[in-house]
Amino acid sequence: MNMSSRSPERLVHVPLGERAYDILIGPGLIGRAGGEITARLKGRRAAIVTDEHVAPHYLEALMDSLQTDGIEAVSLTLPAGEKTKSLEHLATVTDMVLSARIERSDAVIALGGGVIGDLAGFAAGIVRRGVRFVQIPTTLLSQVDSSVGGKTGINTRHGKNLLGVFHQPDLVLADTAVLDTLSKREFRAGYAELAKYGLIDKPDFFEWLEKNWTQVFAGGPERIEAIAVSCQAKADVVVEDERETGRRALLNLGHTFGHALEAATNYDSARLVHGEGVSIGMVLAYQFSARMNLASPDDAARVEAHLKAVGLPTKIGDIPGELPPTERLLDAIGQDKKVRSGKLTFILTRGVGEAFIADDVPPSEVLAFLEDKRLK
Amino acid sequence: MNMSSRSPERLVHVPLGERAYDILIGPGLIGRAGGEITARLKGRRAAIVTDEHVAPHYLEALMDSLQTDGIEAVSLTLPAGEKTKSLEHLATVTDMVLSARIERSDAVIALGGGVIGDLAGFAAGIVRRGVRFVQIPTTLLSQVDSSVGGKTGINTRHGKNLLGVFHQPDLVLADTAVLDTLSKREFRAGYAELAKYGLIDKPDFFEWLEKNWTQVFAGGPERIEAIAVSCQAKADVVVEDERETGRRALLNLGHTFGHALEAATNYDSARLVHGEGVSIGMVLAYQFSARMNLASPDDAARVEAHLKAVGLPTKIGDIPGELPPTERLLDAIGQDKKVRSGKLTFILTRGVGEAFIADDVPPSEVLAFLEDKRLK
Repeated sequence: MNMSSRSPERLVHVPLGERAYDILIGPGLIGRAGGEITARLKGRRAAIVTDEHVAPHYLEALMDSLQTDGIEAVSLTLPAGEKTKSLEHLATVTDMVLSARIERSDAVIALGGGVIGDLAGFAAGIVRRGVRFVQIPTTLLSQVDSSVGGKTGINTRHGKNLLGVFHQPDLVLADTAVLDTLSKREFRAGYAELAKYGLIDKPDFFEWLEKNWTQVFAGGPERIEAIAVSCQAKADVVVEDERETGRRALLNLGHTFGHALEAATNYDSARLVHGEGVSIGMVLAYQFSARMNLASPDDAARVEAHLKAVGLPTKIGDIPGELPPTERLLDAIGQDKKVRSGKLTFILTRGVGEAFIADDVPPSEVLAFLEDKRLK
Repeated sequence: MNMSSRSPERLVHVPLGERAYDILIGPGLIGRAGGEITARLKGRRAAIVTDEHVAPHYLEALMDSLQTDGIEAVSLTLPAGEKTKSLEHLATVTDMVLSARIERSDAVIALGGGVIGDLAGFAAGIVRRGVRFVQIPTTLLSQVDSSVGGKTGINTRHGKNLLGVFHQPDLVLADTAVLDTLSKREFRAGYAELAKYGLIDKPDFFEWLEKNWTQVFAGGPERIEAIAVSCQAKADVVVEDERETGRRALLNLGHTFGHALEAATNYDSARLVHGEGVSIGMVLAYQFSARMNLASPDDAARVEAHLKAVGLPTKIGDIPGELPPTERLLDAIGQDKKVRSGKLTFILTRGVGEAFIADDVPPSEVLAFLEDKRLK
């Protein structure tokens, strides 16, 4: 992967038939949003959903760009954080979108991270049984993961993302300039999902990251390249299995353990954010695979070493504060969407870049493994 | 249409690729529901949603049948009536479905009329981004209309069905024996939707109904035949245009005026039920078409005469009580989902069985027409 000769902007096309769309990746896209949208969508109204952290930085620039290109836009600024992915906020968003008389050809625009994207996308998917949807992800995590692929959702008392729809965006604008204002911790959390694509089925990409991760963190062409490779990887899987009836489940590497840990910390971002949960979850998936004699302990150690090197948590013990009993962690895993007829489904691995779907994992093995791991 | 030699049960297949499903039409299907479901679905859990009018009559029989065939079922009985199609009740249903740990291969079962079907279908469409869905419609209206085609939804303060998803059922069981317990008024309301299929593009069917409607009301093979013709007609349109980007809008004949009248009566079923709104709406659509010199006044008179003969309301003046100013009716039409870029879209007609989509109807013409019609 030699990117020295490449222009800074990249385009990844997601060929989903009549739901096909473009992902643009590069600096300064928010300032050009109006033009990119009018080039692709018929409607001339938009409802922007954002949060109180993002709005002060980028909302005005986005509104200006939309206005310049003749799009009449209104906006709604919600509290930041995972708790915003609730039925109450969904009601607020849909009411705002209907008040703005957004029609099927008009757009809901998500300006923010994964929480805003998941919530606004869900609203876009259910208002008038589906209006147009534009993702403007402002975190690394959402640029490489949630803004691509059409999964939307909110949390309930039963667990994370248990209500939602598949609703593909019509355009994704990944403005890489906004990543410079992310905290180190937020950038690292996104990096976990980025590294995930290497761990699933791109061993060369993981090796490249091991060598080039400092440049990805520093910015420049390596960062844009890494995001583009990740979006392409996700797009490839989504095109093959849009509604997650098979292969798409591979994208959940690290997520079953990760979601359980997020639930165990009550989605308290001071203790654990999603990408950190995925980081620990991926290490656990590799270690559990080694314990089941599926993968080498060396691979688990290699994955742990890299994620630790970039500053990510890699052990249950890295999570500050008390955790509930292991049985309750297992219960959270059982309520995870990836359950099939009572058995546990996990993404396990035979090595770096060799993940696979295991749909008959015995809960007793997981319980014993977790009991063991939380003591270390 | 000679049905004397036919067996009483009919099957209509809806060939929607991986979303294909069967509609069974005949007496006694509720008592056989378990067998029909296990023959088609993998999951062995079900969450039944019903209402307080229907539950006393059919819930036990359904639960018994499911139990006999090894399906573990729970049920939720909601208040009857249009007001149940709310976000609050959606929250109640989704919480119950999640509590029952319904997985993607398990089913939500709607046992009731259109309200229950629309609400339960919406819940089935968003829990875990879509679980299996079985419709057991218990009114004529839902048997010939809402239980086929995958439209689900709830109402908001902005209007009817403004939130929802497309989520096809996996099976529809139209038990015609339950129709014997419907009130005359409810049966007539369903008949309006049934006659609609003739008015859209089946002039022979409308003529057959003009001759045979008393037998359809009395029961027997004519009733089953009329329901089967209607389900087939709806299935044909849905297969051609599943997500209503074109031709499917024809099914809204009478619905734009009808929804406005329902909104004007605040969805008070004592004054106007959906099918009655559609009956008046269809007559208005024919009269408006005649006023615009698109159809003959004779056709409008013929449609009005038949709907009046079966006992349906056909005039705005048939609605008991006061109605809001005509401008407010027009406003309700403007918020209807079928709006396209500010212009009004109506289903108009060139004669019986010759409906078409008109997407540039001037609001001023509609206003003048309604002002005129409400005085008569």
